[in-house]
Amino acid sequence: MRELITSRKNPLLQQVKKLLSSRKAREASGLFVSDGVKLLQEAVRWWPGLDTVILSEGVEAEVPEGVRTVTVPEDVMASISPMQTPQGALFLCRLPEPKPFAPQPGMLLLDGIQDPGNLGTILRTADALQIPVALMEGCVDPYSHKVVRSSMGAVFRMNVAQTTWAEAQKACQDAGIPIGVTALTDAALDLRQAPLNKLAVVIGSEGQGVRQEILNSAGQALIIPMNPNCESLNAAIAAAIVMWQMKQ
Amino acid sequence: MRELITSRKNPLLQQVKKLLSSRKAREASGLFVSDGVKLLQEAVRWWPGLDTVILSEGVEAEVPEGVRTVTVPEDVMASISPMQTPQGALFLCRLPEPKPFAPQPGMLLLDGIQDPGNLGTILRTADALQIPVALMEGCVDPYSHKVVRSSMGAVFRMNVAQTTWAEAQKACQDAGIPIGVTALTDAALDLRQAPLNKLAVVIGSEGQGVRQEILNSAGQALIIPMNPNCESLNAAIAAAIVMWQMKQ
Repeated sequence: MRELITSRKNPLLQQVKKLLSSRKAREASGLFVSDGVKLLQEAVRWWPGLDTVILSEGVEAEVPEGVRTVTVPEDVMASISPMQTPQGALFLCRLPEPKPFAPQPGMLLLDGIQDPGNLGTILRTADALQIPVALMEGCVDPYSHKVVRSSMGAVFRMNVAQTTWAEAQKACQDAGIPIGVTALTDAALDLRQAPLNKLAVVIGSEGQGVRQEILNSAGQALIIPMNPNCESLNAAIAAAIVMWQMKQ
Repeated sequence: MRELITSRKNPLLQQVKKLLSSRKAREASGLFVSDGVKLLQEAVRWWPGLDTVILSEGVEAEVPEGVRTVTVPEDVMASISPMQTPQGALFLCRLPEPKPFAPQPGMLLLDGIQDPGNLGTILRTADALQIPVALMEGCVDPYSHKVVRSSMGAVFRMNVAQTTWAEAQKACQDAGIPIGVTALTDAALDLRQAPLNKLAVVIGSEGQGVRQEILNSAGQALIIPMNPNCESLNAAIAAAIVMWQMKQ
């Protein structure tokens, strides 16, 4: 039996708005919100912590038993959905237990990836190519609804490790895994000349690149050779090229 | 000496709005519009057909002699700019002469790439990796402002060929260049097993994939092996992996 909520002032709907806009609210409550019928299917299939499903009237979705399911009028959905054209399904998930950082050869370390679309696309690609990933300082919250959406649900299949450069560097050193770092310097080695599947590779944001602190202390600087008239590649594209090179 | 335009009804501003929203208007007038200070710099540097520059009051930009330059109040700029936060520069460029399709080994043929962000990112990557590209049926206009923006100005460094599958197929046959096509079928060959730098490779949209007509008549079906739990890669990511594999 579904609940019907019609008041926009209902505490659940107020909570959804907060969770959509604030990482702090997500961390304080241990919940995050995603949007969309297809993403809901992915969450039902993969995510152990589905908490509450909110559907527009007339929208059907398979929801596991024991998950609170609420129906709202379309205009109420429109008032809480982050989408211009809501698909009629919003849902709350429990955040996972933090996953300890596990150094592995052939992994990505992300530094300061702030664009949700780029981070989501990187997670989607990493999931498809089965490359381990960890987020370091300055990355956008992987449980922001924009990241979840652009990951096409890959976030629901991964428990993304979150760490710091200090921790990642030490763990890789202890495990004997060399760290490579993408950099646009003349001294950098052509990506194709490095044994990428044996390294942990740091990718930075496209605006700032990798932090100087990391450039100074990481091992091999790596470059994707490109047309000198171009300044950079999109961060998700650079990450995809690195991941694909790990599969050579 | 710059002109000052203050009326939103000025014919130039009306024309800009039409050019931003309609491919037909662009093709009829032979002009397209881009937005942004950085893109203007790229156009000044690379594009032979810079026609008119419109700047917000107080915004400075180097504009070559002979190019009409107009200043408008900020609120007028906001009324015509496609950006929520206009950067203060809009400019009109002349469309290039259509470039005849030239078959080359190690090139991309794009089929039905309708998402402007994806097409722009593919063009940006192709420019960076120096991979020739041609657009076939169903691709979004490369001179739409969204494509130009997400190409980060790469469009200004390339005269992108536009062709049809029939023409591309015949030209590649005549030139002895085999055509590969990305497809998610079990019969497809792992991309890494194919001599990609000798092929022309067709990439389709992520929703639809490559058209059946092309799948039926192209040569080798190619696959990027991936986690079976994933349905697909982002089209720009798939294209980047194909391009990078061409560089192996």
